[in-house]
Amino acid sequence: MLTTLSGQWQPRHGFRAALRNRSAHGCSRAAKLHVRAEAASSSQPQLVVVGSLNADTVLEVDRIPKGGETMNAKTLKTFPGGKAPNQAAAAGKVGYPTVMLGQVGTDVNADLLRSSLEEASVDVSHLRAVEGPTGSAIILLQPSGENSIMIVGGANKAEWSFSEEAQEVLNSAGGLLLQREIPEELNIKVAKIVADKGKPVILDCGGGEDPISEQLLQHLTVLSPNETELARLSGQPTESEQEIEAAVHKLQGKGVQQVLVKLGQQGSVLYGAADEPIRQGIFKVDKVVDTTGAGDTFTAAYAVALLEGNSQQDCLRFAAAAAALCVQRPGAMPSSPLRDEVEQLLKSES
Amino acid sequence: MLTTLSGQWQPRHGFRAALRNRSAHGCSRAAKLHVRAEAASSSQPQLVVVGSLNADTVLEVDRIPKGGETMNAKTLKTFPGGKAPNQAAAAGKVGYPTVMLGQVGTDVNADLLRSSLEEASVDVSHLRAVEGPTGSAIILLQPSGENSIMIVGGANKAEWSFSEEAQEVLNSAGGLLLQREIPEELNIKVAKIVADKGKPVILDCGGGEDPISEQLLQHLTVLSPNETELARLSGQPTESEQEIEAAVHKLQGKGVQQVLVKLGQQGSVLYGAADEPIRQGIFKVDKVVDTTGAGDTFTAAYAVALLEGNSQQDCLRFAAAAAALCVQRPGAMPSSPLRDEVEQLLKSES
Repeated sequence: MLTTLSGQWQPRHGFRAALRNRSAHGCSRAAKLHVRAEAASSSQPQLVVVGSLNADTVLEVDRIPKGGETMNAKTLKTFPGGKAPNQAAAAGKVGYPTVMLGQVGTDVNADLLRSSLEEASVDVSHLRAVEGPTGSAIILLQPSGENSIMIVGGANKAEWSFSEEAQEVLNSAGGLLLQREIPEELNIKVAKIVADKGKPVILDCGGGEDPISEQLLQHLTVLSPNETELARLSGQPTESEQEIEAAVHKLQGKGVQQVLVKLGQQGSVLYGAADEPIRQGIFKVDKVVDTTGAGDTFTAAYAVALLEGNSQQDCLRFAAAAAALCVQRPGAMPSSPLRDEVEQLLKSES
Repeated sequence: MLTTLSGQWQPRHGFRAALRNRSAHGCSRAAKLHVRAEAASSSQPQLVVVGSLNADTVLEVDRIPKGGETMNAKTLKTFPGGKAPNQAAAAGKVGYPTVMLGQVGTDVNADLLRSSLEEASVDVSHLRAVEGPTGSAIILLQPSGENSIMIVGGANKAEWSFSEEAQEVLNSAGGLLLQREIPEELNIKVAKIVADKGKPVILDCGGGEDPISEQLLQHLTVLSPNETELARLSGQPTESEQEIEAAVHKLQGKGVQQVLVKLGQQGSVLYGAADEPIRQGIFKVDKVVDTTGAGDTFTAAYAVALLEGNSQQDCLRFAAAAAALCVQRPGAMPSSPLRDEVEQLLKSES
């Protein structure tokens, strides 16, 4: 059974943690979310999340099979994943009207992604269905700690196209949230549409390792890397506050104004929004259960607070509270909090 | 793409062929089937099919990954499978009221099986959902011809239980169709219920290699092996007509009256229904595209014709016609014919 997992799998989208608590997507939770969805004001312009959608199938095996061999596996579980769906779900769950644009296949994994996002109150009506498989990963989880992954690009790798309705969604967006799991030119294309309307465009730097083009940086309102991503993107060390600031300045020199650096236990710092960096510490938690998805939740909650017109300090605070709730639960998508939970935490800490 | 498949995979449930024509489950077909479903007389007592339900995920890879390796796979496709679902679908598609009993998981593969069976007009309302994965196989399809299979027993291997409603379905069955992919004791249990009511119980010998217990044989109306299965079950050669007859007699000595032997190109022979064996040749076809599922279609069509009260010769003829239509199409579930198609073929050959 899954409880025997030794946990050597390094999660991309949090299925290790999700494996530990498969009931996190329970019914009472879903019911609450529906209440949330109705509570969300329809007058707010939508947060649009564009990105890659994946289904991750984890197969627990004693070892990798040989050629021609038929063997038994212990179990199999498929999780909805991808940084974009995780962030869209986090935004939907804190009650902001959120729509996901991207491409899924025509298989049952597409249904899994749709239903998981719908459960998080995300509008999936503009997802494009492309004949063939949904982007997928098959993970052979081995007791030795060596795990093997087979990735199927599927619909994510098919040629992208946006329907007229999806274009309209972008045109009327209240803001745009991007990651780095789709080709850069797609990010540039959608960022330009939303930036040209004067709406905020936020790029979470997770999901890709290449340098970010200046063309994309120009259209961004906020670039949000963690420490490692900042080091890689700037080509500079990020060990100290001075180094982080220098790395941020280098990126700002390439065309992005605001850089929101996620520093894990050290909280977060937003550069370029005011004369001085705006700092936010973490909300201390009794026990960190699983940090998977915490970065996604942070960025998404920040985006929501920004679109709701809060001060930058309040945006960071809201994001920190959401992330603090997220790390206390296992899983990626199921672990991000509901609005009430965030507000209660903010109230209790003020 | 899938068109590059070299075809070395030996299908259990016909996904090789299904891979070659992924559109076989098209819309116009589904529409026809719905018409069929309405046409089926509700006064006929249901054909009950009890067995194992599987989802077969075929992953086309260049090779098997090493431990710790992340690599790309070409594509992924999941097919509904299992001999019982194939037979239930074949029966549903020729317009007989058919219900499937068995266990699926709580994952999207369960939805795939349900919807595929529903599309074939099979009543799936009594399938039992068991927390966890649906029975699955992950097949790594390699260009070398060596393919590796990882099997997850899932819901099929969970403890079986029949709801009161499912028991009632068995009690009021018009007939029962079994295979050998579930534990023998389950087959015995359900066979006894239906046999005790004086209704026909048919066992297709595919799906298991162990000897059949006398306890099960006693409850059977018709045992239906192919040549290979007959040889294995009798422990005797089946090269000539004399040998086949001797092998059949041996099984009849253990408690089953009628044995319907499927002989491929040589047609079929039913022993024990009359003084003399009843023979049926095949319906010649211009081109055999794929024999996958032909045996399942034959047995299911025979069961339907039997429940409809036809003479044994007509039952064999109906089954032969259905099988002849099946081999002209790729795939397992999608390749079995509709009632009109079978009747047209019968008319044209009479």
